[in-house]
Amino acid sequence: MISERVLKELASVLGPEHFTSRCEDLITFGTDATKLRFMPDAVAFPGTPDEISRIFQLANQERFPVIPRGAGSGKSGGALPVEGGLILAMDRFNRILEIDERNLIARVESGVITAVFQEAVEKVDLFYPPDPASIHISTLGGNVAECAGGLRAVKYGVTRDYVLGLGAVLPTGEIIRTGVVTAKGVVGYDLTRLLIGSEGTLAVVTEVVVRLIPKPAYRKTMMAFFETAAATVETVSEIIRSRIVPTALEFMDKTCIGCVDESVGLSAPKGTGALLLIEVDGDKGLARKEATRVEEICSRRGALEFRSPSRRKQGEKLWEARRDVSESLYKLRPDKISEDIVVPRSRMAHFIGFLEGLARTHTLPMAAYGHAGDGNIHVNILFDEKIPGEREKAQTAVKELFLKVIEMKGTLSGEHGVGVTKAPFVEMELSKPVLELMGRLKKAFDPNGILNPGKIFPYKI
Amino acid sequence: MISERVLKELASVLGPEHFTSRCEDLITFGTDATKLRFMPDAVAFPGTPDEISRIFQLANQERFPVIPRGAGSGKSGGALPVEGGLILAMDRFNRILEIDERNLIARVESGVITAVFQEAVEKVDLFYPPDPASIHISTLGGNVAECAGGLRAVKYGVTRDYVLGLGAVLPTGEIIRTGVVTAKGVVGYDLTRLLIGSEGTLAVVTEVVVRLIPKPAYRKTMMAFFETAAATVETVSEIIRSRIVPTALEFMDKTCIGCVDESVGLSAPKGTGALLLIEVDGDKGLARKEATRVEEICSRRGALEFRSPSRRKQGEKLWEARRDVSESLYKLRPDKISEDIVVPRSRMAHFIGFLEGLARTHTLPMAAYGHAGDGNIHVNILFDEKIPGEREKAQTAVKELFLKVIEMKGTLSGEHGVGVTKAPFVEMELSKPVLELMGRLKKAFDPNGILNPGKIFPYKI
Repeated sequence: MISERVLKELASVLGPEHFTSRCEDLITFGTDATKLRFMPDAVAFPGTPDEISRIFQLANQERFPVIPRGAGSGKSGGALPVEGGLILAMDRFNRILEIDERNLIARVESGVITAVFQEAVEKVDLFYPPDPASIHISTLGGNVAECAGGLRAVKYGVTRDYVLGLGAVLPTGEIIRTGVVTAKGVVGYDLTRLLIGSEGTLAVVTEVVVRLIPKPAYRKTMMAFFETAAATVETVSEIIRSRIVPTALEFMDKTCIGCVDESVGLSAPKGTGALLLIEVDGDKGLARKEATRVEEICSRRGALEFRSPSRRKQGEKLWEARRDVSESLYKLRPDKISEDIVVPRSRMAHFIGFLEGLARTHTLPMAAYGHAGDGNIHVNILFDEKIPGEREKAQTAVKELFLKVIEMKGTLSGEHGVGVTKAPFVEMELSKPVLELMGRLKKAFDPNGILNPGKIFPYKI
Repeated sequence: MISERVLKELASVLGPEHFTSRCEDLITFGTDATKLRFMPDAVAFPGTPDEISRIFQLANQERFPVIPRGAGSGKSGGALPVEGGLILAMDRFNRILEIDERNLIARVESGVITAVFQEAVEKVDLFYPPDPASIHISTLGGNVAECAGGLRAVKYGVTRDYVLGLGAVLPTGEIIRTGVVTAKGVVGYDLTRLLIGSEGTLAVVTEVVVRLIPKPAYRKTMMAFFETAAATVETVSEIIRSRIVPTALEFMDKTCIGCVDESVGLSAPKGTGALLLIEVDGDKGLARKEATRVEEICSRRGALEFRSPSRRKQGEKLWEARRDVSESLYKLRPDKISEDIVVPRSRMAHFIGFLEGLARTHTLPMAAYGHAGDGNIHVNILFDEKIPGEREKAQTAVKELFLKVIEMKGTLSGEHGVGVTKAPFVEMELSKPVLELMGRLKKAFDPNGILNPGKIFPYKI
């Protein structure tokens, strides 16, 4: 609990219009895309790195938690105030500072919404590839915190691959810059990539320097329907083996297709067991050639139907189906646990088989979709909290899922992070010396443990 | 100094055939590509992570420095035993463990020579892009330590962009794995990228897991000669602005051309002030189209001559000129200081102008070549140690060079690292709180400071 005296001091640092501790204001800042709920003591809307620094000085002195928050679209609870404390809402860091067309570099404040930034760079014919499904809500700072991936990662990589440098405030109060504003740089330890994916536990990012690439001249979206999930993911392996690198290779299982079909009107052919959404982009001639080869592979692999719309708008419609999946699954049950495990691409068919068995064993609907090109599958375990025993069944299933993933040399998270939801399982993947080392790194940044406590680590550090 | 008793103990850990403290054996392990000389106390050739762990236990107990060493081709002195101690020569970690064609992932021991690994993956039609100029000597472990870049970085990125995970031994003795063996992963802090570019000061890397890409089907090498350096780098900017992403965009100034011309027989046209080596690769049709556009841009920018050999062998000849530069500069003077600063691409012309002025002021030959596509210029300041005052003049010039680079918002090193040679200047680029934070990170890994001391930091930490 932050004392009244300290709340007053915070209000005076920020100005009363940028600070609140009124209960009704706090509620929305206690939850995120996990739908878990906690209650912060107050919310600050800082306007400058200097204000954040002053907040940290106070937090170290008075020992209250500070939880940075972008848009609250995180799927592992990274922005949740699990131990109460002060939410640092980064909304006011909302300026695109510079798009340097000559050097293909941009500087952006961390509260800028990713899609807004993307549109701005595309206006000058440039391209910022990372595109998490939450792109219209999530902020660049949140993307950095989680090392967000997205639909185009199979070709273009993830947030980490585009960030050159950061402006940040350390939990000890110092305002720092990391990395470079040039194409390359290796001076000192790579603080930039250490902060990327650190889930807001090491520093508060205020500015992001990213590299841009030329906007692809052309893109083509396709969709292939298959009888079985196994056939679908084997097609993915064959596309990759044939040296085509599509922009997107998205998988959706039968359960997902059922849910999406209703809302978007996908009209999947009868007998569809799974589908692939495929996109190629780049030079028009080359992309078309690749599209033809993708079609050949899909037909050889027994696709029930292959759609290759020539109009952009129809292509968008196919994407709509993919974007709609996550929300549409709530039709099946009011609650879900959404994981984003990764397995070796070549073992996806085996994994999908395992998943079907898991759903049968636990008599719960399970849906799988995601970035098949990366082996990054979003496994959704659906349940109804009000039905006794269903949450527990779901939780048992998650544990079995993770055991299988580790056995397959996979990882528990491809892009959502550990946060709160996966912290109890993190020891399945990270060894004791690795976790201890990470604990020492955390202490090197945040000796008093004030910044975003209760995340990543399975125990109090 | 390591005592006789400890030397004996080390010999028994490693076996006498994998350990030496004989003076004549030690000499070559005291130097590297910087040509600086120090003397280690002993050299170990460990064969397993477990042996390295036991060495570290002993080193912590007896407090002697341990200096990991790949091929000793580093240009900033990262492998030099500046405080004596034990050289950990990684020669025996020389196996390619797996090339997984289905998942486009390879596992390699850190002592494998980069070119050997590249040839192995190219045999199965895959591609590992990072290609430092030292590729036929340097090891993957050394490339990881320095985050090596190379000639193709403008299109394909640097070592960091291909490493998925590492096997490593911490200076506290624990054997760890970092990262993933899948396409993606974000569980816990990014130890993989923290170790990359840490110049062997945080852990000893024993295994490297890398992602591979399909081997480009076609490549085309071209060379353009210009009257002035300014025209040359402006051409680079125009190529980049025109949305072409060449594989390589290498610059060489007049001094370099003069040196190379003799040895390789370049026959540069009269009046040449600088040249560009350009390569495009990928799909044959697209690469040819890009080559045509590159030629158009060069001719519009007033190229004196444009070479576009159709035979592979002639293309190789052009590359030979580029690879020969570094060594051929010794014709001018017996000694040189070789820097690898980066400036914003758009300001290269300004920078080259500055450099010409610097050479005049200090009356020393200076040569510039390098990765113009990244703004990463290798500045060579030539001198003769035996001529009184020349080394001092060269050192003064380095300082002025660095001041200019920082003023231009550049960085002191694009790919060589800080090591010993740039440590005295690192405070020009890194702020006090950043260096202090890096010091705390170093302590979190290596509380007793036994691993590769005297590197990166400008003071004893």
